[in-house]
Order: sequence, then C-alpha cells, then structure tokens
Amino acid sequence: MSAVPPQRWEVRVQRPIAYDVIKAPALFDPASDLLMSFGNPHGRRFVVVDGTVDRLHGERIRGYFRERGIEARIQVFPGGEEHKNSEIYQDIARALDAFPIHRRDEPVIAIGGGVLTDVVAFVAASYRRGVPHIKVPTTLMGYVDAALGIKAGINFNGNKNRLGAFEPPLAVLLDRSFLPTLPRRHLVNGVCEIIKLAIIRDAGLFQRLERDAARAVATCFSEPAGEAILDGAIGGMLEELVPNLHEEDLARRVDFGHTFSYGLETRHEHRLLHGEAVLLDILVSTCIAQARGLLSAFEADRIFALVEALDAGLDYGVLDTDLMWASLLDRVKHRNGLQRVPMPTGIGHCLFLNDISRAELDAAVLALHSRIKASHEPAIEC
Amino acid sequence: MSAVPPQRWEVRVQRPIAYDVIKAPALFDPASDLLMSFGNPHGRRFVVVDGTVDRLHGERIRGYFRERGIEARIQVFPGGEEHKNSEIYQDIARALDAFPIHRRDEPVIAIGGGVLTDVVAFVAASYRRGVPHIKVPTTLMGYVDAALGIKAGINFNGNKNRLGAFEPPLAVLLDRSFLPTLPRRHLVNGVCEIIKLAIIRDAGLFQRLERDAARAVATCFSEPAGEAILDGAIGGMLEELVPNLHEEDLARRVDFGHTFSYGLETRHEHRLLHGEAVLLDILVSTCIAQARGLLSAFEADRIFALVEALDAGLDYGVLDTDLMWASLLDRVKHRNGLQRVPMPTGIGHCLFLNDISRAELDAAVLALHSRIKASHEPAIEC
Repeated sequence: MSAVPPQRWEVRVQRPIAYDVIKAPALFDPASDLLMSFGNPHGRRFVVVDGTVDRLHGERIRGYFRERGIEARIQVFPGGEEHKNSEIYQDIARALDAFPIHRRDEPVIAIGGGVLTDVVAFVAASYRRGVPHIKVPTTLMGYVDAALGIKAGINFNGNKNRLGAFEPPLAVLLDRSFLPTLPRRHLVNGVCEIIKLAIIRDAGLFQRLERDAARAVATCFSEPAGEAILDGAIGGMLEELVPNLHEEDLARRVDFGHTFSYGLETRHEHRLLHGEAVLLDILVSTCIAQARGLLSAFEADRIFALVEALDAGLDYGVLDTDLMWASLLDRVKHRNGLQRVPMPTGIGHCLFLNDISRAELDAAVLALHSRIKASHEPAIEC
Repeated sequence: MSAVPPQRWEVRVQRPIAYDVIKAPALFDPASDLLMSFGNPHGRRFVVVDGTVDRLHGERIRGYFRERGIEARIQVFPGGEEHKNSEIYQDIARALDAFPIHRRDEPVIAIGGGVLTDVVAFVAASYRRGVPHIKVPTTLMGYVDAALGIKAGINFNGNKNRLGAFEPPLAVLLDRSFLPTLPRRHLVNGVCEIIKLAIIRDAGLFQRLERDAARAVATCFSEPAGEAILDGAIGGMLEELVPNLHEEDLARRVDFGHTFSYGLETRHEHRLLHGEAVLLDILVSTCIAQARGLLSAFEADRIFALVEALDAGLDYGVLDTDLMWASLLDRVKHRNGLQRVPMPTGIGHCLFLNDISRAELDAAVLALHSRIKASHEPAIEC
C-alpha cells in the first residue's frame, strides 16, 4: 500500500459474453453429440421440460440421455404464463438441490416454451449465483424471440417479469422438429413477433410475410419459404438485441408492440397469448402512427391486410383504454421517465415517441374498432 | 440475409463493469453531495436499513434526505443471518413496487451489515432484471469484505447463499462513523476476515495485526494504525476479487477459512457470526497445514497467538467433524468437482489442496482441541 491512505479504489473490468444460436435439426437423435458438447460430455444433466413437451416429446428426450448413458433428471413443470411465478422458480431450485450438479460443467437444460425457458434461465442465473444453462425452445415464440436473448424472469406481485436477470446461456439450440406439434394458435403467436420485427426494421421480411406467412403457418415452417422467414427473423432479432444486450439503451425498437400489451396480458393472462397482446398493440400503434401522419394509409392497410390474411383470431374485446394507459405509465417507469414508444414510419423503419396523449390513445382504439367492424361488413364501393 | 441459410449465429460482446469503493467520512452530512451524486441528484431514493442501523443512525440518515429535500422511502428490515431469506427478499421487492423508482437513475441504497447489503443487492440485481444500487456497509465485516465485491444472495432450502447474483454496485461508500457503535464482538468478526487475508497474501498486514489489532479494536479503528489496517485489508481484498469478479477461476485464495465454516454457520446461525466460523476454519486449516509440513510450528504459533491476543471468544464446542466433512463435500460441488481448499504455506502465501482426507480433518480438530486446552492450563516448562 502507498504511504498516503487511498481515498478510493477503482474497479474496472470487462466481462466477456459469448454464446451461439445454432440450428440443430436432429438434436435428440442419440447419435448427435451437439447437446452434450456443452460442459462435461459424460457429466450429469438436470433437464426441465414443460408438461406439453413431456407429453409429446418426453420419450424421445429421455431416450437420448438413456442411449448415451447419461444420468439425467428430467423435471416436469407446468407451462403457461400463470405458472411463471416465484413458487415454480423455487420448486425448480429445490429440485436442483436434490440433484446436485457441478457448478460449472453440468449445464441445466431448459426445453420448452418462452415461459419455461424464462423461468429456468432465472433459476440458472441465481442458483449458486449462476450455473450455466442451455435453452432449447419448442415454440415458435421461443424460437424467434424469447430464447434468443439473455432476458430471464418471473412474474411477481401482479407484474410481468418483475423479477429476473440478464443471463447469457451457454447456447441456444433450435430444433425445428418441435414446431409441427404446435397448435395453429401458437404458431400464429410466434408470427406476431416476426411481424413486429419486420415493421420496425425489415421491409424485405415484411414482403416475405405477405407472400408466404399463411402457407408457412399451414406447413409449420417446414418448407424453404418458411425457413427463410425464420432465418430472417432470428438474424434480425439478434442484430437488434446483441448491441444492447443489457438494455443500456432504453430506446429499443424491439419494444414495438410492447407498451399497451403489457397491461392487457397481465390482466388477461388466461385469455391472451403474448404474441396476441403484442399484435393488438401493433394495430393500435398503427392507428396512432397513421393519425400522426407517420404512416401512410397504404402502409397501414398493408399491416391490416397481413394480419387479416393470418386469421389470427384476435380478441378485440380486451381493448380497454384505462388499462392500456396505466400500462404506458408503468412502461415510463421501466424506461426511466420517458415513454420511448417505438412507432413505425413506413414499413421497415421507426422512431420513438415521448408525447403520446391519452386522447390520442382513445382515438386510436376507436379507429381500430371502426376498422375491424368495417372489414367484417359487406364492402361498400366508395 | 445471405442466400445460404446460416447454421449458427454468434453472440460476442464485452460488458463493462465499473464502480468505485470510496472512503466517505461524512456521508450523511447534509452538506455532502457524494451520496446523491450517483443517479439523478434530485430524484427519489429507496433506502433499506436494518433495524440496528435504524435505531442508532436512523435520525441522522432521515435528516440527510429531509434537509436536502429528497423524497426518500426509508425501509427498515430486520438484520441477522436468520433473515437472509426469500421472504425478506420478496418483502423488499414488494416495497419497491409500492414506491416505484425510475429504472436507471434512482439507485436503491442499502445501509447495513453484510446480510442486509447481500439481500438488497440481490433484490436490486433481479428487480426489473436489475436496477442500480449503492452499498453503505455499517459493520466491519461489510466494510472489509461483504460490501466490496459483487456477490449478492440469500439463504435458501437450508443452504447459505444458495440463490443470488453477481451484481456490480454503482458505488461502495465507506463511512467509518458507523464503526464506533458496533459491539466489540462485531468488530472482532470483521477482523477475522482481515486475518484470513493477511495469512494467504500479505505478511506485512499480518505484522500490522500482531502489533496493532488489539488496540485498533479497542479504539474502533479510529486511530491511524487502525485505519492503515483497514486500508490494507480493503486494497488487498479488491486485488484478490477484481481479476476474478465472477469466479471464473474457482481456486480462490479468499476462500481460505470458507470450507469447513460453511456447514458450521449453517447449523449454528444463531450462535456463530460469519467471521467466527471463518476463524474456526482458519485454525483447523492451520493444524492441517502444520501436520502436512506446509506451515512451521513457529508460523502456526504466530497465528494462534494473534487469535489469542484478540480475545475472540471462539466457541470451540461447535466443532463437529461430521458436519465439517459434509461441508467440504458441498464445497466440492460448488468448486466444480475439486476440493480447491486454500492452505497457508507460511504467513502471506498459500496453495490449494485437493486431497484432504477425513482422517486428516479428524486429526486437525483433535490437535486444535489439545492446543486450546493447553493454552488455558498453567504453563509447564519443557
């Protein structure tokens, strides 16, 4: 130590974050080494699957570990937004205690939808202050959105994702063999996030959706055109996320559709899927953008036509401007005092608004209702 | 996107970590800007203090915010290891929800002992996936150890710090005005960690302790010799922690004294302070090191003499080799399959052992008991 006592000590380090998102078409083929190549290939594995994955794919997953002679604990937890809570989080942590893994080279494996991977990633983030984890998304929502980044979390005290972590996975492994077992509604749920991404940053992807989305949903993205949509969505999403992994910049284009939806899905967690809430928000925002002159009538029509063609079965009855306004106010806290609402300025571009008024929101919801009503009435030539 | 669909996307980023540990002798003088210089200086503040701090310093802390015109919520939570749990963690998160702060520029302020700062830092780490926090340690243990690094956590499922995070603070502010209100036992508790640090890396600090520790404790570290001990301990601790903040390297010299103690303090959380458990572990380890010939009898004697001079009032009755062996086995999980027990090789140096046997532990505890017994019997000239 120096003779003069120091008045301050500076801590300055760089923490490297490194993971790959890998297309893995035969992940659970016992001949495939990929899944076991992360960590000790002969070590134990704690694997969490949700109930649906267990029912549809559990035997295949168990067979993989059994045939490779790996001691694996397959822990089944209920999926669904209503189980994204601290009880399930603690249950998983206790189950981990009961199957003690090495802290570093026996990664936890999460196989399931966005809720399951979010919760397991938060357990992995906090168990012993962090053990490695691998995400294997089984829903389209996970595949193109929830599993790609480093956001983990649970709902708490009536608020979505109120507790969580930014926790990089060891890897994200994308096995498309899960998609054909998804109900159509859940495929469309994932497409909603792709629409969001296309509107705010990728006109080419929007055109692909216009041309191929309906068929891609019908064929569970098994054809090349569907795969191209997924590749575009994943690559584009990562280009948005990676420079801002920890959300240092609170003006995030990927927050498009995530302002008014926050309150809607909190209130209607049994009725709305996440993507459906996002799509409702997108349509309200489209009406705001059109009313402000940011979006032309032609561009707004393209957005509505794409949603119509998808047959998303949206439940417009949940739109409630009091709830949506309260949701915006909460997002202002989350975005550190400013609205920072992404708003399209044409297909493929956006800016951020900080001055949306309550009257503007009310008018947009009215405009949306008229538009929907009109589209379901016999066309009248103008 | 390229014409050939990509098979993998690579995420590679560096996350900067930057914070200062600052000596702040008049932190709660209303004329001092330091505390409010982190974040919006006119914003709101959510402040958590433990019951003891509230009783002894609450008025001074409230006065600081009041006189500066800052809207602050002073939240009082019980201190003590038995409250380092998920209930308290959730209570604090709910209180945060009820006093909504901006996500980025209204840092949470934790004022208290190591338990309080560990729990609040974990809340801050996970609330909205991370809000900034400032640590103001009020105990010597916090001052020289718990508050300096980025480890946050709570006990869970019968295990210490089983859930937590590596969460860098915005700043660590060291105000020595809290130390004179500490009971002697709590001052000695902090000195135990300084002894640990001195043994494994700093012979000069060990000499300072031999010369000045007893008086420094008696004067609550208010004199220059005491301050020099603190500066040496803080600087040395940070030199150990900073290159390995996230414990990428599991062979940590600062884990000296933290192998057998883990089980002891889990079992006896009402009876043992953390530093006392660490010091018991240090003495057992010293016996192991001496038996292996790593430490000379002269060096072992110096360690025992320093502990004796401190009058630490250690409770040797808690030593239980079954419990301590189980503790080592848990640490092996935590240290990814190897014991990695730091062991002194002279004062100021150490190496890591991976082959401590049960018989060796048993012998060391027997040797320790004989040594203690001998030191309390009338001296017999050899």
